[in-house]
Formats: sequence, C-alpha cells, structure tokens
Amino acid sequence: MSAPVGDIGLIGLAVMGQNLILNMNDKGFTVVAYNRTTSKVDDFLANEAKGTKVQGAHSIQELCAKLKRPRKIILLVKAGPAVDSFIQQLEPYLEEGDIVIDGGNSHYPDSIRRTKELEAKGLLFVGSGVSGGEEGARHGPSLMPGGSNAAWPAIKEIFQKTAAQVNGEPCCDWVGETGSGHYVKMVHNGIEYGDMQLIAEAYDILKRGLGVHESEIADIFTTWNKGVLDSFLIEITANILKFNDDDGVPLVTKILDKAGQKGTGKWTAIAALDAGTAVTLIGEAVFARCLSAIKDERVRASKVINGPQRDAFRGDKQQFIDDLEQALYASKIISYTQGFMLMRETAKELNWNLNYAGIARMWRGGCIIKSVFLGDITSAYEKNKDLESLLFDDFFNKAVHKAQPGWRRVIAQACLWGIPTPAFSTALAFFDGYRSEVVPANLLQAQRDYFGAHTFRVVPGKENSRLPKGADIHINWTGRGGNVSASSYSA
Amino acid sequence: MSAPVGDIGLIGLAVMGQNLILNMNDKGFTVVAYNRTTSKVDDFLANEAKGTKVQGAHSIQELCAKLKRPRKIILLVKAGPAVDSFIQQLEPYLEEGDIVIDGGNSHYPDSIRRTKELEAKGLLFVGSGVSGGEEGARHGPSLMPGGSNAAWPAIKEIFQKTAAQVNGEPCCDWVGETGSGHYVKMVHNGIEYGDMQLIAEAYDILKRGLGVHESEIADIFTTWNKGVLDSFLIEITANILKFNDDDGVPLVTKILDKAGQKGTGKWTAIAALDAGTAVTLIGEAVFARCLSAIKDERVRASKVINGPQRDAFRGDKQQFIDDLEQALYASKIISYTQGFMLMRETAKELNWNLNYAGIARMWRGGCIIKSVFLGDITSAYEKNKDLESLLFDDFFNKAVHKAQPGWRRVIAQACLWGIPTPAFSTALAFFDGYRSEVVPANLLQAQRDYFGAHTFRVVPGKENSRLPKGADIHINWTGRGGNVSASSYSA
Repeated sequence: MSAPVGDIGLIGLAVMGQNLILNMNDKGFTVVAYNRTTSKVDDFLANEAKGTKVQGAHSIQELCAKLKRPRKIILLVKAGPAVDSFIQQLEPYLEEGDIVIDGGNSHYPDSIRRTKELEAKGLLFVGSGVSGGEEGARHGPSLMPGGSNAAWPAIKEIFQKTAAQVNGEPCCDWVGETGSGHYVKMVHNGIEYGDMQLIAEAYDILKRGLGVHESEIADIFTTWNKGVLDSFLIEITANILKFNDDDGVPLVTKILDKAGQKGTGKWTAIAALDAGTAVTLIGEAVFARCLSAIKDERVRASKVINGPQRDAFRGDKQQFIDDLEQALYASKIISYTQGFMLMRETAKELNWNLNYAGIARMWRGGCIIKSVFLGDITSAYEKNKDLESLLFDDFFNKAVHKAQPGWRRVIAQACLWGIPTPAFSTALAFFDGYRSEVVPANLLQAQRDYFGAHTFRVVPGKENSRLPKGADIHINWTGRGGNVSASSYSA
Repeated sequence: MSAPVGDIGLIGLAVMGQNLILNMNDKGFTVVAYNRTTSKVDDFLANEAKGTKVQGAHSIQELCAKLKRPRKIILLVKAGPAVDSFIQQLEPYLEEGDIVIDGGNSHYPDSIRRTKELEAKGLLFVGSGVSGGEEGARHGPSLMPGGSNAAWPAIKEIFQKTAAQVNGEPCCDWVGETGSGHYVKMVHNGIEYGDMQLIAEAYDILKRGLGVHESEIADIFTTWNKGVLDSFLIEITANILKFNDDDGVPLVTKILDKAGQKGTGKWTAIAALDAGTAVTLIGEAVFARCLSAIKDERVRASKVINGPQRDAFRGDKQQFIDDLEQALYASKIISYTQGFMLMRETAKELNWNLNYAGIARMWRGGCIIKSVFLGDITSAYEKNKDLESLLFDDFFNKAVHKAQPGWRRVIAQACLWGIPTPAFSTALAFFDGYRSEVVPANLLQAQRDYFGAHTFRVVPGKENSRLPKGADIHINWTGRGGNVSASSYSA
C-alpha cells in the first residue's frame, strides 16, 4: 500500500459532508471521503468531486490507512447512536493520538462522555459545532471545536482555513474542554431563536401597530441593516419582505404562521433552567413558537376574545420607528448578555475554560447570527476576558442607556395596542431586575418561611439579635405552631 | 398472631408522616406506623400518638401482617432510591391487589415506571401529591392520588376524609393514570411559583412605583383578599407586610432578596418545554428566582446601570391600585390557563384521562394555592369537562375582558417606571398572542426557509400553483442556489 496522503478524513456524504469536503479541498487539503453506502463515494468522486484532490475510501480500514498521522476524521452523520457506532468501527484502526471529530448536531452531554471514553483509550475527541448550513459548509462555516485540548494544534490549520473569514480573521477558534464545542453551538442556536423572535415582534409592531405595508417595512429593515443591527438576519428579513408573489402580494403574508423547531432552542432553555441562569429571552422565543403552533386554537380564541380598540397612531411615526430600532438593539444586547451568562455559569460548573472572545469571533461570520454586533462582543471580551456581563462593558453599557427610553416607549405602546412582545418585554424585565439592588424576592422568602418554614437570611446591615448574620432564620409569623424550621417540607 | 386491625400503614415518621397518621386517626382509621429506625416508632407511640388507636410495627413483615386486605401502605420517605428500596422490601409480604402509595415528592416519570412495575406483579401503585405542609398533613392536606385505577375504590374513603374539606367537599379526588398524581402535584407547585411571583411584582409596583409603605400595602392586600383574589397567599402576604420587627420596621424589608427553589418549579418549566406548551408564566417565575439569586452581581450592576427618572405618580392612585388588582387577577387567569393547557397536552401524549374539575377541586383547599378562584375553575370544568381553555369559559372570558384595560395600563406604567414585571408582562404577551389569529411566525418560517430550506405551508385560502395546499413549500428566495429543500440541515 502506498504512503498515506490524506490530511483529513470525512465520514458521511450528505450535502453538508460533501460541501465541507469540497471546501477543505479548495483550501489545499487532501480529504479522504467515506460513506456507509459506498456507492455514494463513487458517485461523489465521479461528479461533485471530479477534478479535485479528494480521495475515496470504501471501508473504514481503507479510510484510516489513507490518513497521515495523527489521523483526523470528521463524522458528519446523524446525531445519536450512529456517532457511537462509527467511533466503535474506527477504534481498531486508530493509534494513540489520533483524533475523532464529531461535526454533527450532537447534544453536549454526549460529547462530554465521548471525550472521556476516547481519552481513556489514548485517542483524542473533538465535538465541533458547524453552523451556516449547506452554503456555509461549502464556502466557509462557523466552526466551534471543543474537546481534547491536545487535538487543537493538529486540527487548527485545517479548521481555521476552512472556516468563514471576517476581516482576515477565521470564524473558528478553540472553544474549550470536552463538550464545550457542542454546548456553544447549542447556545448559538438558542440565540438564533431569540434574534428571529425579536425581528418577528418588530415586524408585527410595524405591521399591526403602525399599519406599515411590507414593502415599507422592507425599507426600514434595509436602513437598520446599515446601523447597529447590521446582520445576516436583518438583511434576509428585508429581502423576504420585498419578495412578492406573482400577484404582487408579499409572499410572507401567504405563509402559515406556525413555526417549527428542531429542539436546540428548547435544549438551551432547559440548560438554562438546569444551570439556574435567567436566560428568559430564549425561553420566550421557544414558547412563542409553541404558541404559534396551536393555530387552530388561536383562530377559535380570536373569535371570542377582543383586544383593545386600536386607534390610528397619532405620534411621530419616524420617532417611533427609531425607538423600535433601539428596542430591538437593546433586547438583542440582553439576549446575548444572557447567553454569555449561561456559558459562564456552565463553564464554572463543568470546569471549562471558555474562550469568550473566541466564541463571539466564531459567530461573527459563517453562521445565521453573523453580525457586526458580534464584532463588538469580541472587542468587549478582548478588552476584558473576565468580563462579568456585557452590560458592564463600556460600549454596551452606553448603548443600552441610549436605547432605554425608546425601548420602554415601544413596549408600553405595544401593551396598550394589544400586540404581543414576549421577547422585547422579557428583555426589559430582565434589564430592570438585573440593575435592581433589591428585587421583591424578600417577599417570596417571607412567604416560603411563613407557609413552609423554609427560613431566610437577613439583609447585610440589618442584623439584630432576632435576625443574626449568616444564619438561616425562621420567624413564627402567626404566633401559632412551633418555631422549628422544616428541613424536608417542599410543597 | 391476632387478626389484622390496620386500615392503612405508613412508612416514614418524619413530621409529615406523623401528622398524616394523627390526621387519619382523627378521622377514625386505624393506622399502623413503621420507621426504618424503629426507636422512632416507640417514641411516636409514647408521645404524639399516645392515647390514639395508632399501632406500631417494628418490621416490614409486622407492618404487613397488621394490615387488612387489600393492604394500603403509604410511603412518606425521601423521593428517589429510598422509595424503590422500600417497595422492594415490601413485595415479599404483599399479595395480589395490595396497594403501595407513594406520598413523597417523586418526579412523575418515576411514578409512571413504578405503576407499571407493580402492576406487572399483580400489585397496585398510587403516586399521590400531598400538599399543605406539616399543618396540612395534620389538619387536612390537598391530596392528588393517581396511578392504578383499580386502587381508587379501596383508598377513596380514607383519602377523602383525611383531606381538607371546602364547603363539605373533600380536596381529594382521583387524578388519573400512572404518574398523573405526581404530575399534577408538580404543576401545582409550578403554579405556586407563578402566584408568588405575581404577588411579588404587585408589591414591588406599590412600593417602588407608587411609593406606598408596607403597612398600607398590607391594607391593600387585605382588601384584595375580600374580592376575586381571595386566597391563602394573598392573606399571608397581608400578614407578612403587617409584621414589624421590634423597632417598628416591617420585617420583610430586612429579609435578603435571594429566593431559593426546590426544583419543582423548574421541573414544570422543563415539562412545558418538552410538551411544547407555552407555560411562560411559570418559566418567568423560575427565572425571576434565578435572577434574585445573583444578588452580588445585581448590586454591582445597580451601581453602573441607571433606570429612568421616576417622577412622583400624578394619576389617580386608587384607580391605579384597582388596575393593579385587575392586572394580578388577569395574569393569574393566564397562569392557570397555561397550567391546564400543559396538563391537557400531557394527558393527550400519555393517554391519561385527567379529571380537570377534580384537580381544581383538590387545589381549592389544603394547599398553598388554595383560593376562591379555584372554585371558579372547578365550576368551569364541571360545566364543560372538555373545555379547551379557561379563556373559553364565560366566567373567565368576562373576567379577563373586564381586567384588560387596567392590566395594560399597569404594565405600560411599570415599563416606563423601570420596575420589572416579568410575570405580568409574559401573561399579557401570551394573552395577546393567544387571541391573535395571525402571529408573526410567518416571518420566522420565511427566514427558516430562506437560510435553511426548512419549507413552510401556505395560509388556507391563499393557495396557488406556486403555493400548493398541504405541501411543504420551499422558495428560492435569492435566485441563487438550488431549489431543493434540506431535510437534514438544522443550524
């Protein structure tokens, strides 16, 4: 057998896999392609990969034999048992230090497990988020690799050259330990849900509140795309709103308002609940899709529940549109603040050293949430890698202060109009709670102690003999019953 | 050995278990008490249970021997492996048709599993929510039993007599199949989180918005407790706000504003995400506790983030307080609407026949969320057991229409004041979304199709040759790329 020539192998020749291979080939790497149904390998070599350096393999053994050491093999197969099955098939042909890379949509706990399992066998594992869809895979995706730290130097060049480039910088960096690559991809998807919901609410306010036609809304989004909101999603929204059906009616108005979901937004919301982090905006975005899905029930409800009388808007229309831009911007700042808080909390819990500036840089291009905004987040974490939250960064702190008055006016107006703004509203509620030295959770604690003897702590500076510092205090609120605090009750 | 005299056995003599035994004894039942550390049995008989009919058992075998057939044994032990361990210890001494009842805070999937396991062995299992804490256990808890349907006739009398009574009706009824008792208890706890958060927001608005002192807020809650909000939580809130420390300062103002949680609110929110049901209010209530918990970060944020200038309120104060009562009431209607939607959805998924009127009746007394309101929900489901949602019931439909103007004014004002109202706001957003025939999810679907070829459906009545009825439609939005829809992409 001839000496191995492959720089990297790839298993799974669906469109994503094919495109990623062609992309890596373009960047000068020799890729060895394998697929379980091996006729797909031949088809690919004879068609899409014709005239490239791409090599085919018809067995796992051949794939491994054709790869230079340390071997690097990307799996782009269905998340779940298929990943474990291919890892098992690969193991007999791998040697110490070889690297298995899962580029699928795996849930991060699986990647944590796989890192441990492979490292125990002397192999290395990388779980990499791959975002940007088929077009991203072909021309430059956002790549979020994490796992065995020792794998990074070996894959860095291939990954960074294959990824999207923004201002000469790759949208790929090392995320961190074990499952962190897939974790960060999950948070990315949750944030994508949030961004989309915010845009939908802005559209709804312009349409149902101000009564603006889609073509004019398209112009507004086009204008916004030149400012702080400059991003892929704002750009495509303008394009969508401009897109008319053959009869000249905006096509979007003919699309059924039932949004689907693939589950990764839900995963993020559940991860937030488990981490005890208030990632409210993604939560609301997921729930807004759930509410959209019960279209028939909504139609029935619309017949028997009336909203407020909606009078024609009498204020300054342009001022209101500017306010709306600020509302969208501020809400987006809160959403990313929450997303980074979640990553920070999880990193603390799982002992990951996350590269926050790198994460923002990876998201800046190649993926659905790509934006100028992510460049600003990159700068914030480059200035201070231990930044507690985006709202402590000068740039975002100023931005949110500037946005605040318009943001509040828009939500107040939408409430009075009867236009739902779950994401805008929860963003503002979070902002007002976050900047509150005192929130009314003191009353919750009093209630919990009253009905369940759950105890509470005293506010620093208010201690006295009845309310000792650092103690779990129970008060006999009613004069009845005992003074003993319950340790087991949990109504 | 003498003939068995025990009507029911109970394992686990912590305060909850002891109180439940004494309660059942008061109602005329002979209870056999057992505890792993058997000295606790002797202590209990010699003290709390002295002079009662309570029997002790010093082994599992003795416990079972002392019980009449079919045996009924309540476990009140720590949720988790302890429950399975006791079931295992019991099995050798049980006979066909005997009933094991788990009265602990078990997660409902465990109760689903245990029902199946025990039924496979010819035994019956009941997972029962028990709410009301130690005092409820002693004098009348809310009991929510579900599991093996065949068990209900055998335990009905004991359970219904032991439970709290409201207007001569017991706060206990059969919930439904397998894990439904613990499921309903979980939703109950989630709703409790929501109710508490709503009250906390009302308190915050009165205090920080209107500038009202705790003693006056107590009076407001006392007044509210005579109207539509009449409930245990409103009552104890008034009592808490009236409760002064020795220096005359309201004690609540000295309580640290970091709220703890026991996890059942979180379980409900996760169950809602898994079921795809928009239970937004409980979600926000859980996240509000999370935000309260990062007190130190909030304090630091409060130093660098300013809210709006909060001028003295110049409107009609009493009118605003009345609006606030309506805001609280309407938000509560939404929260229960969402909770019952979640139960309905889960029942559909798991093939449970849930007794919705019965559930509301069980919650009407004996537990933390007990209220007059739950009597109205009982009536709604008694009138129509297939009620699609509370908002379709005449009583609640009228109530929410009446509440609507004040509800909107309160939230709009709180936004402008900078007082966080996550639960009020999400309730209104849900209401406005629910009653919207069209929500802007059409734009989400367009975006998803644009960037990921996820396809969409056409609005009924808008079909044409390009937008065929019932088809998954993909549009080539950009004129670039292919027309093929992606089945695997999920960025």
